[in-house]
Amino acid sequence: MRYLLTNDDGIYARGLTALCEELSRDAECVVVAPEVEQSAVGHAITLFRPLMVRKARKNGKLLGYAVTGTPADCVKIGVRELAGGPVDLVVSGINLGANVGINVLYSGTVSAATEGAILGVSAMAVSLDTHREADFTFAAKFARRMASSILRSPLPPGVALNINVPAVPEGEVRGVRIAKQSGTPHWESFEKRTDPRERIYYWLTGETSLKADADPDSDEAALANRMVTVTPIHHDLTRHDLMDRLKADLAELL
Amino acid sequence: MRYLLTNDDGIYARGLTALCEELSRDAECVVVAPEVEQSAVGHAITLFRPLMVRKARKNGKLLGYAVTGTPADCVKIGVRELAGGPVDLVVSGINLGANVGINVLYSGTVSAATEGAILGVSAMAVSLDTHREADFTFAAKFARRMASSILRSPLPPGVALNINVPAVPEGEVRGVRIAKQSGTPHWESFEKRTDPRERIYYWLTGETSLKADADPDSDEAALANRMVTVTPIHHDLTRHDLMDRLKADLAELL
Repeated sequence: MRYLLTNDDGIYARGLTALCEELSRDAECVVVAPEVEQSAVGHAITLFRPLMVRKARKNGKLLGYAVTGTPADCVKIGVRELAGGPVDLVVSGINLGANVGINVLYSGTVSAATEGAILGVSAMAVSLDTHREADFTFAAKFARRMASSILRSPLPPGVALNINVPAVPEGEVRGVRIAKQSGTPHWESFEKRTDPRERIYYWLTGETSLKADADPDSDEAALANRMVTVTPIHHDLTRHDLMDRLKADLAELL
Repeated sequence: MRYLLTNDDGIYARGLTALCEELSRDAECVVVAPEVEQSAVGHAITLFRPLMVRKARKNGKLLGYAVTGTPADCVKIGVRELAGGPVDLVVSGINLGANVGINVLYSGTVSAATEGAILGVSAMAVSLDTHREADFTFAAKFARRMASSILRSPLPPGVALNINVPAVPEGEVRGVRIAKQSGTPHWESFEKRTDPRERIYYWLTGETSLKADADPDSDEAALANRMVTVTPIHHDLTRHDLMDRLKADLAELL
């Protein structure tokens, strides 16, 4: 078995190292990760610059390939060039911070898994619901179990799993929930400021806490209630159910 | 009526100017667009740097607000801060280059429309199927008709339209097709090179032409066949149909 591991926090992130240590018990793990942090890059890819690739080490130990690109770039170049053979599973993470609801759209971590699925490889993203220094032990153990499960019972083509783990001790995790992506909007706004040269600039700011009262079948509510969430995601954005209505609406334009 | 216009080719792009001129016949058009080209940034947003905003002019004429961010950033800050009142419609484009099939995931143009829908505003993306210097006349006219249609018969919440226009004279356009996002994979690979300092780098390369033999109901095939394509898209990535299967598969993990 050969797994390709990536993330959006960068190749030196502790969550990636924890994931690699745990998954290496079952498979050869090839790490291909961004040289620098790429949070909120969504599904960006690099077209107009080359990707520089180097072997990255920490304390003399080889971590993997550091790439001057996004998580989706890392999966593309990892699967196509660097892995050294067919990849059985792409695993992205362990991210510092949950990726649920609308935030899935902005997430480099999740987009890396989606890219794996686009390339025809089984894939999953794993995120831990904390932005502080975290204990990745349980999330890594769960990722290992999920990897075995996916390989035993493969996902349909084009599907990836988005997994979120609550940041509580293992004994306080209340179970695993197959959950849908929450659609609950979050409050956000921009803070307007003036720089020392009198130019206007803005910081995006907003609410980051999960809403436990979101739709109970959603990833957001389940994670807020200390459940591990598993959401099957895909990359067909089409609203198939609206095709007929649009045909009628646009009849005069046809 | 107030429209918010953006793109991913940058505020000085001709496609945006053509769109603005045409849509201004029906509505006040507020342009909020990236300071520099942002192609293939997907749904990236800017969290860890501030957004600089300035009024951009060309030949003394005010174009709109230039923002040091992505298309999704422009829609967020445009709707929340810069538009000067409620926005009735977000229009992103006119992009140089089609946004169909898998490429929709990587597209800044389309992500801007998706962001509008996330914010609760009707939204559409318009792309022209050429990378050369283009005639935007018909695409802009079609965008104006679509804008009227959307405002007459609003889309359900969270839905945006992804519109692609063939780059042929208006008389050669074969009609309008409500089409689904193509799932046909495209060939791509990486070209490996060595820089003058002996470091390895890679360029992403691949096939860019549309496949006329893709699924005939798809955006890709219809556009290749000189149809305007209209695809309703949304931001719920959940594969709802797989939830029960996953519950069974993961029963031993629950």
